[in-house]
Amino acid sequence: MTGITKTTEKNLMVFAGRANPELAEEVASLLGTNLVPTSAYDFANGEIYVRYEESVRGSDAFVIQSHTTPINEAIMEQLIMVDALKRASAKRITVVLPFYGYARQDKKHRGREPISARLMADLFKTAGANRLMAVDLHTAQIQGFFDGPVDHLMALPILADHVARKYGHEQLAVVSPDAGRIKVAEQWSQRLGGVPLAFIHKTRDINRPNETVANRVVGEVKGRVCVLVDDMIDTGGTITKAADALMADGAAGVVIAATHAILSDPAIDRLKNCSATEVIVTNTLPIDEAHEFDKLTVLSIAPLISRAIQEVFEDGSVTSLFDGHA
Amino acid sequence: MTGITKTTEKNLMVFAGRANPELAEEVASLLGTNLVPTSAYDFANGEIYVRYEESVRGSDAFVIQSHTTPINEAIMEQLIMVDALKRASAKRITVVLPFYGYARQDKKHRGREPISARLMADLFKTAGANRLMAVDLHTAQIQGFFDGPVDHLMALPILADHVARKYGHEQLAVVSPDAGRIKVAEQWSQRLGGVPLAFIHKTRDINRPNETVANRVVGEVKGRVCVLVDDMIDTGGTITKAADALMADGAAGVVIAATHAILSDPAIDRLKNCSATEVIVTNTLPIDEAHEFDKLTVLSIAPLISRAIQEVFEDGSVTSLFDGHA
Amino acid sequence: MTGITKTTEKNLMVFAGRANPELAEEVASLLGTNLVPTSAYDFANGEIYVRYEESVRGSDAFVIQSHTTPINEAIMEQLIMVDALKRASAKRITVVLPFYGYARQDKKHRGREPISARLMADLFKTAGANRLMAVDLHTAQIQGFFDGPVDHLMALPILADHVARKYGHEQLAVVSPDAGRIKVAEQWSQRLGGVPLAFIHKTRDINRPNETVANRVVGEVKGRVCVLVDDMIDTGGTITKAADALMADGAAGVVIAATHAILSDPAIDRLKNCSATEVIVTNTLPIDEAHEFDKLTVLSIAPLISRAIQEVFEDGSVTSLFDGHA
Amino acid sequence: MTGITKTTEKNLMVFAGRANPELAEEVASLLGTNLVPTSAYDFANGEIYVRYEESVRGSDAFVIQSHTTPINEAIMEQLIMVDALKRASAKRITVVLPFYGYARQDKKHRGREPISARLMADLFKTAGANRLMAVDLHTAQIQGFFDGPVDHLMALPILADHVARKYGHEQLAVVSPDAGRIKVAEQWSQRLGGVPLAFIHKTRDINRPNETVANRVVGEVKGRVCVLVDDMIDTGGTITKAADALMADGAAGVVIAATHAILSDPAIDRLKNCSATEVIVTNTLPIDEAHEFDKLTVLSIAPLISRAIQEVFEDGSVTSLFDGHA
Amino acid sequence: MTGITKTTEKNLMVFAGRANPELAEEVASLLGTNLVPTSAYDFANGEIYVRYEESVRGSDAFVIQSHTTPINEAIMEQLIMVDALKRASAKRITVVLPFYGYARQDKKHRGREPISARLMADLFKTAGANRLMAVDLHTAQIQGFFDGPVDHLMALPILADHVARKYGHEQLAVVSPDAGRIKVAEQWSQRLGGVPLAFIHKTRDINRPNETVANRVVGEVKGRVCVLVDDMIDTGGTITKAADALMADGAAGVVIAATHAILSDPAIDRLKNCSATEVIVTNTLPIDEAHEFDKLTVLSIAPLISRAIQEVFEDGSVTSLFDGHA
Amino acid sequence: MTGITKTTEKNLMVFAGRANPELAEEVASLLGTNLVPTSAYDFANGEIYVRYEESVRGSDAFVIQSHTTPINEAIMEQLIMVDALKRASAKRITVVLPFYGYARQDKKHRGREPISARLMADLFKTAGANRLMAVDLHTAQIQGFFDGPVDHLMALPILADHVARKYGHEQLAVVSPDAGRIKVAEQWSQRLGGVPLAFIHKTRDINRPNETVANRVVGEVKGRVCVLVDDMIDTGGTITKAADALMADGAAGVVIAATHAILSDPAIDRLKNCSATEVIVTNTLPIDEAHEFDKLTVLSIAPLISRAIQEVFEDGSVTSLFDGHA
Repeated sequence: MTGITKTTEKNLMVFAGRANPELAEEVASLLGTNLVPTSAYDFANGEIYVRYEESVRGSDAFVIQSHTTPINEAIMEQLIMVDALKRASAKRITVVLPFYGYARQDKKHRGREPISARLMADLFKTAGANRLMAVDLHTAQIQGFFDGPVDHLMALPILADHVARKYGHEQLAVVSPDAGRIKVAEQWSQRLGGVPLAFIHKTRDINRPNETVANRVVGEVKGRVCVLVDDMIDTGGTITKAADALMADGAAGVVIAATHAILSDPAIDRLKNCSATEVIVTNTLPIDEAHEFDKLTVLSIAPLISRAIQEVFEDGSVTSLFDGHA
Repeated sequence: MTGITKTTEKNLMVFAGRANPELAEEVASLLGTNLVPTSAYDFANGEIYVRYEESVRGSDAFVIQSHTTPINEAIMEQLIMVDALKRASAKRITVVLPFYGYARQDKKHRGREPISARLMADLFKTAGANRLMAVDLHTAQIQGFFDGPVDHLMALPILADHVARKYGHEQLAVVSPDAGRIKVAEQWSQRLGGVPLAFIHKTRDINRPNETVANRVVGEVKGRVCVLVDDMIDTGGTITKAADALMADGAAGVVIAATHAILSDPAIDRLKNCSATEVIVTNTLPIDEAHEFDKLTVLSIAPLISRAIQEVFEDGSVTSLFDGHA
Repeated sequence: MTGITKTTEKNLMVFAGRANPELAEEVASLLGTNLVPTSAYDFANGEIYVRYEESVRGSDAFVIQSHTTPINEAIMEQLIMVDALKRASAKRITVVLPFYGYARQDKKHRGREPISARLMADLFKTAGANRLMAVDLHTAQIQGFFDGPVDHLMALPILADHVARKYGHEQLAVVSPDAGRIKVAEQWSQRLGGVPLAFIHKTRDINRPNETVANRVVGEVKGRVCVLVDDMIDTGGTITKAADALMADGAAGVVIAATHAILSDPAIDRLKNCSATEVIVTNTLPIDEAHEFDKLTVLSIAPLISRAIQEVFEDGSVTSLFDGHA
Repeated sequence: MTGITKTTEKNLMVFAGRANPELAEEVASLLGTNLVPTSAYDFANGEIYVRYEESVRGSDAFVIQSHTTPINEAIMEQLIMVDALKRASAKRITVVLPFYGYARQDKKHRGREPISARLMADLFKTAGANRLMAVDLHTAQIQGFFDGPVDHLMALPILADHVARKYGHEQLAVVSPDAGRIKVAEQWSQRLGGVPLAFIHKTRDINRPNETVANRVVGEVKGRVCVLVDDMIDTGGTITKAADALMADGAAGVVIAATHAILSDPAIDRLKNCSATEVIVTNTLPIDEAHEFDKLTVLSIAPLISRAIQEVFEDGSVTSLFDGHA
Repeated sequence: MTGITKTTEKNLMVFAGRANPELAEEVASLLGTNLVPTSAYDFANGEIYVRYEESVRGSDAFVIQSHTTPINEAIMEQLIMVDALKRASAKRITVVLPFYGYARQDKKHRGREPISARLMADLFKTAGANRLMAVDLHTAQIQGFFDGPVDHLMALPILADHVARKYGHEQLAVVSPDAGRIKVAEQWSQRLGGVPLAFIHKTRDINRPNETVANRVVGEVKGRVCVLVDDMIDTGGTITKAADALMADGAAGVVIAATHAILSDPAIDRLKNCSATEVIVTNTLPIDEAHEFDKLTVLSIAPLISRAIQEVFEDGSVTSLFDGHA
Repeated sequence: MTGITKTTEKNLMVFAGRANPELAEEVASLLGTNLVPTSAYDFANGEIYVRYEESVRGSDAFVIQSHTTPINEAIMEQLIMVDALKRASAKRITVVLPFYGYARQDKKHRGREPISARLMADLFKTAGANRLMAVDLHTAQIQGFFDGPVDHLMALPILADHVARKYGHEQLAVVSPDAGRIKVAEQWSQRLGGVPLAFIHKTRDINRPNETVANRVVGEVKGRVCVLVDDMIDTGGTITKAADALMADGAAGVVIAATHAILSDPAIDRLKNCSATEVIVTNTLPIDEAHEFDKLTVLSIAPLISRAIQEVFEDGSVTSLFDGHA
């Protein structure tokens, strides 16, 4: 046969945007490598410039970016990073999204709205992404927004094991702060050995979906330590009012657990002042020191992401990471 | 200017597959037209043949097909109808799905599953669909699976108005048979004037998602007539067990309301024998006479679909059909 | 260079739908492996569920499904299997179609018809297929319907060698039952050493393309054993009438040979009762025992498919499998 | 409602490449308009330049180009014309192909060949074509190569009516020069009232598909005037040898009819010297005066194309042009 | 014919993002309409929410957004607006970009860079844009980055006519501040009646493309009033150093003219302090009052954009707006 | 795990069209391999036929074709070659374009023109190209026309090193023959150690972009040996007039250097007769012996292309080939 034959090698390379470099470094370090050196800065008018300082040709590239504030900067930077990888002949590009921006706009709540979560999936596809990896998507259906493989990682085992270790000896209840998210609470209940469920029935104003009107506890919480669970804490209004409603209904205590700590103003104040005694989150989003407070426990998501990247790179099984659990 | 100029006209044409011709005829009749004459039959080996008996060139085509059993036949026939329209130069093709098949497979519940609901959206797009119109999607996120406009119609006003007229004088509660669907119950609660909410907390075996293990009522239902609401009734196991659990918990009565009456065996027997006194559904799926029974009330969805088609054809607003309601 | 380097491996995995598992098992066995364990069942309303029991990440996947009755089930199952493979990160997906459904609808015979054979190619592409492998396409142009590589396997050597061994000592003629398929008869003639050709000139009613009106033999068949060849036998009307017409024209005997044994009713009765003495087919479609009869010879296509898969996996040449022949 | 409303108009515009301007002008004139003034020339290195001298914004554009020699120039010019129309905001672009280049490469005859006929369909799609219109495609399956509407026009009525008028009183036979094209001969037979069929059985060297090895008449032609039919005459070798074989077999005379007169060297000499008494073709390809000869009858295809364009523009039916015929 | 026929109407609707509402309002007003009422705000974490307050179904939509600082917000908002329009059934979506963000990253200056200007075109296409309209693209090749019609508007006539009116009696020279943009200067020279050309030869550090190293005037400027022209003024370093170099070389005076006034810090200070006596720009980007200064002349681009929208809506000619000029 | 595992190998294969086989052979030879044996010929009507004589399955294919006259033949042949590779299961297809045809039509110079350079990129993508490799694109923005990786090779080091060796001891100036191409001259200036720049200010008739009207030297050339640089020499009018203008302005001598020697008539005569003493080009386009003349120096581009192919095949860095230079 004509031609030159050679054994094929593959090279895992990890790239980080500027939104959460600590997390990316921790992931790379757990994998036993370094982040690929990258030049990235803003031009005077805010346009983002990116260039890789090493050849990335043929690489199996993982591009990590947390969609933190300013969120549109973070997303655009990641899109531009993907474009640069595509044009520099990376072989496969996996976009790693510890927190998936715009995930809450996953449907038209009313007519003439965008479905921004689908738009994000399409933008990454267009830029050149072959695969997505994300942690605790706001709704699991978002997996279906991307035309290709999505590895959906769950922080539940990390968070729930912490709760079990610390509060396992108490009478627990798992509570959803919202009628729409009881499914997640069910998974918590199952993992914590079948503890009772409850939820907060609230009315939201459809024009301002993050303002709550009224809260009523549905389910039995009296005398129990309530684990109030959600995927994210943004301004913290919903969840802190829920905590207070639980205490008013006779709960023995409240612990808040959520994967994504957006913590927009005035979340910190609300959390500090609410009746919950501990707030457990992960570092899918960066939490600067000024934002940390006594009640706050931050668990690292890096071990989960690095194990998942390893499995993807070695054609192993990401599903197996969650076997025996959910 | 060179050329021949002419005022543009548009022509609304309604097409029906063989799965639910009665509904399609009712829709066409309400619009003031007839279904386009179509030849459709199966070859000996089951391959479907379709041909339109009239020119469809330039038409604004609406292709109505209920995804009823045998469901893969129904879907394939609609795909083939869309292909034939595309190749025959229809100007715009709207796929009308009173019931959207495979909607429940809207995410990977476990690794290595398909996301068939997204696949269906892509198949219709590939065949040539420009737009989708659907009634009560299993999850609203499915709107985001299609790359184009989706008109999402809600049967809630039709069903809830019937309930309000008939049971409005009773002490009501709205109950979701499942933790994952309380959001819909909240909309019912709101439309019925703020009646209390409850849900059934059950455990499913993840390997066989339509078999239920245990049921516990969460919320207060004692002495109330419970409106047990869901988007569809398939084998009826979940909802009839929920009805019985509600009565066991002291409910004054149970009424079941659901948009899509799949009614797979043994749904009819279960519904007949359960403690609910009325089962209210629509005709998004055909219900043959043999399947009707005393408790069953079937409300027609045709007026809603025909009004929506009218708005789409005339560049009006489908959203306005639901104004003042949800 | 930054990163982690590893030699790349590839893994051949064979998957089977539920339409013809015997053939798929035979193929896997000839390759020296097993079918990948797969859960597949129908929900109560006929929706198909599929899940792979092992990680398929990075695999070179071959998905075998015969498009047998109920044919739309078989096709939809294969589409869903491909979707699941794509989302589970298979590296390359080859759809293996021993019999390609809807192949006869490969053009518009009249206005406003679909071109379903093209539609099928597009649906598989959309679901995630990278390549197709098919046996004896109804027309070779169907290769051009798929936007990617198509391996077109020919059963002619298998069938013709059987005929040559058994009837090589007779005065033979090769006969096409239809004016449109004489090209295939020419290939048979060439392979059998240049025996004379004939065809049946018949008129079909364009509205019902599988009903024949009149038959006239064009070419010289007197005193010869006629090998009546076609790509498929569906209801058997055309080919059995052709056999009788040949005997009426003085043929010494008739042997029927075809790749695809659809054998829709009343094919079996017709074949049993017609003047042909042997009916030679392959197992591209499953033939249940009840359908077998004395005259029927079934040759296995599995060796051909397994050799082709081997060549594809090892970057060998599929063309070479047919060298020296056609 | 906000905005400015206006009745929509559409404007039919006809464009011609430089390959066969006479035909395009005849088409435009029959439609009652003129060709859109267009600058088109070659740069010194052969690159083609095209610009329209009038605004084409919003037009319903029909771009006529015969794929004549030098055929790659003709195709590239048409692609560039389509690109310019797309970028100049034409509303709908119909590519009109009186002769579709590369139609004979509609499948892989052997491994590692292109399927150029599919490639051409894709190139036109990519350039911006919304629809194709073509006359007598080499195989009807080519319709399925284009992802969109294809209007397939048939010259058969024009050619056959000429034959019927002139030779209707004779004992006729319809003869295919090739086993692969008897289907077309069947259509002729039907249109001429059911006259007998025959074909020439020849062997081609697979490496040089337009060289014939041996010819044998299959079917009865003695004493009949044979109408030898094909879709195209390229070098004329096949068809003239067929004519001679028919006379040798006792035919009373031979008339040749074909839609596309490619007439590559040495077609003219062969046709002049063969035993056929008339050669009937259309002007889908330009025939310069030097190429005309006594036996040659050229019928215009322009009326057919202009009627088809009219139907497409006015959302009428192209199928209806052939009703009552084929 | 079956169906309901209606004359087609089209409705021009103008939409504005939040980046430069004054310009959009001026455009709408010149067209004789209003901006479509739109809700747009940021969620606490910076995610953008958009909803149209009126039905936009069937509209011919023009979405105006200046890509000003914070530029990634402005771009993302416009992408989301386009997505919402697509999903709300707008008929045609034209993205209007008075200033096209990332236009300077129109090629890889070095390996492993993105081509962000192409990425932006693809992102808009993916979101649903059918056409682009832009003013003075950084390089005209960017037109080719979008797969569809691009209307490229030129501010040159507006700027140059102002210069001609005010300085036409002087001895002028046209000067490019950069070797790469002399082509634009040539167009100015032609429009001003053939005045001499010059350019500044500078060396840039390839790692920081907007820092200049050295300036040398190439061409004759002594005693002339130099019109220093560019497409944009960002930090103003290049152009103000050029102005000073021209004065040092004996120019009689310097006037700066540019379409896009980005005016990032410290542009205002530099312009105030440089030797140019007038700085002429347009309002493609918003200039808040605090940024205005004595030398600055702002000409409105709104009349040009509104005329172009009018031509596009009415299928007129945008090219004609520039006839007789460039 | 089920399946058959094997180490992956990759095989570099080099393919050549018929436009410039000498260059392709030189490239293959430098790589240490041979061109893949290929059948390619024209049918009588000019349709191109291509077939590979060896299996190309799984190959890393590089398809070299110079776009020389007849240029549309050359491009179409390469498109067909790519299609054949795609359908024959090549793993990755890199289109190598020593000269990229239609590169000069990289924007709309006026309304209603095509952007043929973008069209070419899209046609190659459609045919199946995964990557492009090109030498000295007319404008670097063309990289952005292709949706995928483009390796842009620069002949500048080859040409400039020749100039430096031969003329380095002279007083040099670098001159652009055209205002639009001074950027390239700047790169030459930098590489030659910072020699002065100049350009010719000419007016072109916009309707016939390769005819020049008037020439004026801008910059200082007196007493200097001018290196007149461009990317290509087509008819040579512009560059030879520039040479004469430079001598008229007092230059000490003129040397012409360009990458692409199109040399359309009457380029050879013009170059022979102009005042330049040497014309330095590369063999990106074939120069037949009849076209060679005394002043002409042809440097081979093959070493550059072969090194780039090597880097691409081995996942090395193409950028590194130009490090330390531009």
